[in-house]
Amino acid sequence: MNLINENSPKRSLNSVLIGENVIINDFVNAYKCSIDDGSKVGAFVEIQKNASIGKNCKISSHTFICEVVKIEDCVFVGHNVSFINDTFPRATNDDGSIQTDADWQVMETIVCEGCSIGAGSTILGGIKIGKNAIIGAGSVVTKDVSPDTIVVGNPAKVLRKIK
Amino acid sequence: MNLINENSPKRSLNSVLIGENVIINDFVNAYKCSIDDGSKVGAFVEIQKNASIGKNCKISSHTFICEVVKIEDCVFVGHNVSFINDTFPRATNDDGSIQTDADWQVMETIVCEGCSIGAGSTILGGIKIGKNAIIGAGSVVTKDVSPDTIVVGNPAKVLRKIK
Amino acid sequence: MNLINENSPKRSLNSVLIGENVIINDFVNAYKCSIDDGSKVGAFVEIQKNASIGKNCKISSHTFICEVVKIEDCVFVGHNVSFINDTFPRATNDDGSIQTDADWQVMETIVCEGCSIGAGSTILGGIKIGKNAIIGAGSVVTKDVSPDTIVVGNPAKVLRKIK
Repeated sequence: MNLINENSPKRSLNSVLIGENVIINDFVNAYKCSIDDGSKVGAFVEIQKNASIGKNCKISSHTFICEVVKIEDCVFVGHNVSFINDTFPRATNDDGSIQTDADWQVMETIVCEGCSIGAGSTILGGIKIGKNAIIGAGSVVTKDVSPDTIVVGNPAKVLRKIK
Repeated sequence: MNLINENSPKRSLNSVLIGENVIINDFVNAYKCSIDDGSKVGAFVEIQKNASIGKNCKISSHTFICEVVKIEDCVFVGHNVSFINDTFPRATNDDGSIQTDADWQVMETIVCEGCSIGAGSTILGGIKIGKNAIIGAGSVVTKDVSPDTIVVGNPAKVLRKIK
Repeated sequence: MNLINENSPKRSLNSVLIGENVIINDFVNAYKCSIDDGSKVGAFVEIQKNASIGKNCKISSHTFICEVVKIEDCVFVGHNVSFINDTFPRATNDDGSIQTDADWQVMETIVCEGCSIGAGSTILGGIKIGKNAIIGAGSVVTKDVSPDTIVVGNPAKVLRKIK
């Protein structure tokens, strides 16, 4: 992979590791993350530091991928999906000072190979979404999802296994 | 309507048919779609190919309008609304190759004249939203909505008819 | 505070009152609003006229803050949060003309000091969110939230008080 810096009108890419045949749309903000071979990133996407995207993934428009989210190969992330890495985020500390990286412990989320996450979903921090699982559109995922399983709703519940 | 191409720092418009008195905000990504007379498109909106927007519509910021969505005249689409055109999206085929247009059948969604879709809603593929219907904010619409009807929730259910 | 106008490739800021040490990310659209000392605004955020953001707030990426929303000091607004100021929005009037500011009455929403609003939430118009309250991720807030209270779900219900 190659380390890319592009500060153009349409893209803000700072220290992004990019593989072969990666397509990054207009209006993308990404920094200190990696995007592996063959993956596509839609418009209005932000990808934060220490996030990694595997090979042949589709990250659809308006999606936010936060720090330390690990997306394995062949994952579909729909439009307007939000990841989270902090259960009780606060703007400031008890003394009123604004919080910085030093003030929270990020929770790692893993989206395993072959998963699909439907548009408009929210994925809480510290979650593991098992291989080939499907998250229905508009779901709020609050706990781990087993492999080959479809979950839907707010909070997301198992709809059925995938045969 | 006039066929517009604008690749400026604030807008990526490729082969967009635009009517009279259309207003397109900054940070918009649209291609091979049409936007008819008097309609307004907010910031951070993406409109995909073969989508059509009627006359005097408001498409609010952060909204994603996907392929083959047909929005009739006088429709309000709130902020941060996502449309979908594929029930089981996957990033790749069984052989591991990334999916292209040839690998899925898009499902047409129709939003009939005079509808209002509340902010933060997700509209699944293949849905018809009848004339003057209202989709409450934050709803996930999984089936057709009758005309003059208010639906809310995840999944969206009928709240009441509009008198 | 200083009145800022910046029409650069990465930012559209028109008549924005900005305090000391404010950080505004790339791809931000804001007009006729105020952002007080020490606050941060993420990428792909829109802030409309007559909205105000207090001191030491974090407004995360993809969030939409509409007209007359008042955010007090030390508030965390997660990614992809939508505010609303109109209960029954319509694109056009009964005579078919497109609605303008003169055609609706905006409803003021107040987010009190120290609150946290989780990612992917939607906040209806006319709501008061009490001091230090927490809105769980993916919630749809349809009524006032008491101080020191956690609410979650669609529609959001009280989970528990914060001790």
